[in-house]
Amino acid sequence: MNKQLLFVKRPTGDADASTWSLVSNPIPTIKEGEVLIQQHYVSLDPAMRGWMNDAKSYIAPMEINSVMRAGSVGQVIESNNHPKFKVGDYVAGYAGVQQYIATEGEGYYKVDPNLAPLPTYIGTLGMTGMTAYYGITEVGKIKEDDIVLVSGAAGAVGSIVGQVAKIKGCRVVGIAGGADKCKYVVDELGFDACIDYKNENVKDRIKEECPKGLDVYFDNVGGEILDLALGRLRMHARIVICGAISQYNNKTAMKGPSNYLSLLVNRASMTGMVVFDYADRYAEGAKILGGWMAQGKLKSKEDIYEGIENFPETYNRLFSGDKMGKLILKIIEE
Amino acid sequence: MNKQLLFVKRPTGDADASTWSLVSNPIPTIKEGEVLIQQHYVSLDPAMRGWMNDAKSYIAPMEINSVMRAGSVGQVIESNNHPKFKVGDYVAGYAGVQQYIATEGEGYYKVDPNLAPLPTYIGTLGMTGMTAYYGITEVGKIKEDDIVLVSGAAGAVGSIVGQVAKIKGCRVVGIAGGADKCKYVVDELGFDACIDYKNENVKDRIKEECPKGLDVYFDNVGGEILDLALGRLRMHARIVICGAISQYNNKTAMKGPSNYLSLLVNRASMTGMVVFDYADRYAEGAKILGGWMAQGKLKSKEDIYEGIENFPETYNRLFSGDKMGKLILKIIEE
Repeated sequence: MNKQLLFVKRPTGDADASTWSLVSNPIPTIKEGEVLIQQHYVSLDPAMRGWMNDAKSYIAPMEINSVMRAGSVGQVIESNNHPKFKVGDYVAGYAGVQQYIATEGEGYYKVDPNLAPLPTYIGTLGMTGMTAYYGITEVGKIKEDDIVLVSGAAGAVGSIVGQVAKIKGCRVVGIAGGADKCKYVVDELGFDACIDYKNENVKDRIKEECPKGLDVYFDNVGGEILDLALGRLRMHARIVICGAISQYNNKTAMKGPSNYLSLLVNRASMTGMVVFDYADRYAEGAKILGGWMAQGKLKSKEDIYEGIENFPETYNRLFSGDKMGKLILKIIEE
Repeated sequence: MNKQLLFVKRPTGDADASTWSLVSNPIPTIKEGEVLIQQHYVSLDPAMRGWMNDAKSYIAPMEINSVMRAGSVGQVIESNNHPKFKVGDYVAGYAGVQQYIATEGEGYYKVDPNLAPLPTYIGTLGMTGMTAYYGITEVGKIKEDDIVLVSGAAGAVGSIVGQVAKIKGCRVVGIAGGADKCKYVVDELGFDACIDYKNENVKDRIKEECPKGLDVYFDNVGGEILDLALGRLRMHARIVICGAISQYNNKTAMKGPSNYLSLLVNRASMTGMVVFDYADRYAEGAKILGGWMAQGKLKSKEDIYEGIENFPETYNRLFSGDKMGKLILKIIEE
């Protein structure tokens, strides 16, 4: 059978168990030109919360009763004369939270589990890594000696953003929740410093760690921390708006950055980014990040849970912060 | 005697008569290498409110008991071997709200009253015009057929921004307060449309006038209107943050743009600008704007009041909106 997680109810505020429904259906049969993919891993991302809203965004809202949207990686186990993929191929794409999918393969691409572990292809070598790499280089426009602040520094995107900025010769300060995460960010990932927003005064600590101010702030969280970063900009600073996890579950209006006139004072910019715009450069980005991984310059950390039935509680870790690195769910049953 | 307006008290909220004190002092005597300038006109700008705050900004805060800072234009009436200016020259600079100044002339430049009326040099051919021109072309990066929304459209900067955008082939919609201003903006300045924020539903009207959304929003006002513009961005739109007049007199925290995640959805940017960054291009900008004025393509409108003692009430017109075009005070007594 094919276990599928359906999105059945748009949440107000936090998503919870009533948001999804786990169903079992027969494994689909494939038509001419299709493949059957058995899915191994799905990616969990804060962006999922946005997809649940019935609002104009960079991607269409999920429809009620559709399979929960998710990036995924799996293996082709049947092919009906597919022109590109053959049985045994590993492929990544957006197959959603279900164990099998019959597809013509549009939007899927082959990955090689001998070059990197399979989960990496939906993390550091997938959308997560591409978001981090193109966000900090193309939108953040980092250059040597820039002072870079990254929120969500122990998270999937933030951890790569900071490591890329270090490789490029920047001074990199992270913000993360808790002493353990901060220790990991500095000791394991090599950030110059990390601010524990749960236990430290973030305003004072940014000032302490970045006495000259910030050239780039890579924002994954929004809210209060975005305002504090705005308050420390240097001239011509760039803020990359990648996400706003602190605001995704708001039941009331989003908090706008009240310090935004710092953009005027400092002739700075705040620019939004969506990774899909770099689709034609994913191969290039993956090659660069994969090269750094092979050289030991870039660490890819995945936090992998198991069981499609555990999706809701695993999803909650995105917002509770109870995870380290890229959150992934293994959904294949062995 | 030299009447001078001193800045004597930092306001909380609105500035009022107690903010300034009018004093009379002897006309200064000039030292070797100095000139004595008799001032004709001073410029009144919303930015003045920001200069009054004791806060880090793009320019040092005004000191208590200093002459009120203002752009100005006047005539050299004495010279003590000044290397550059001679008696009779008209010069523009930042001499502040006072009738005479003795200066070495740093930051002053010669203007020609035969080419354009004197007040124009602190308006369309001065900082105001330069702000508008470089703001909309360099920061807004307008190109033909862009859909451009301009707040403060009947104001000093906004009226030029919109006219420049029209000259460059854009569709230009203004926002202004009151039917008279809107009529002026469309009939006299040639904007394609103008939204009366005092009497119309701005959200609906933006949608109506810009059904495809906005490529550029030039913001002079901040607040609610910035949020409405954010809600109508097209892909890769640019927001130019030139000012936030709706927020300058706040006694409480500034209202941040709660729709700022539209920057992410639309891969758009919000960039601050300060005209001083274009100082080495003022001559170029003034030549371009002056050329358009001479060809009748660009209208320069000044709203001129008289009497240095009337500065406080004239200043209030900046925020009450009771003025049309560039607000100027004539301070020479004839």
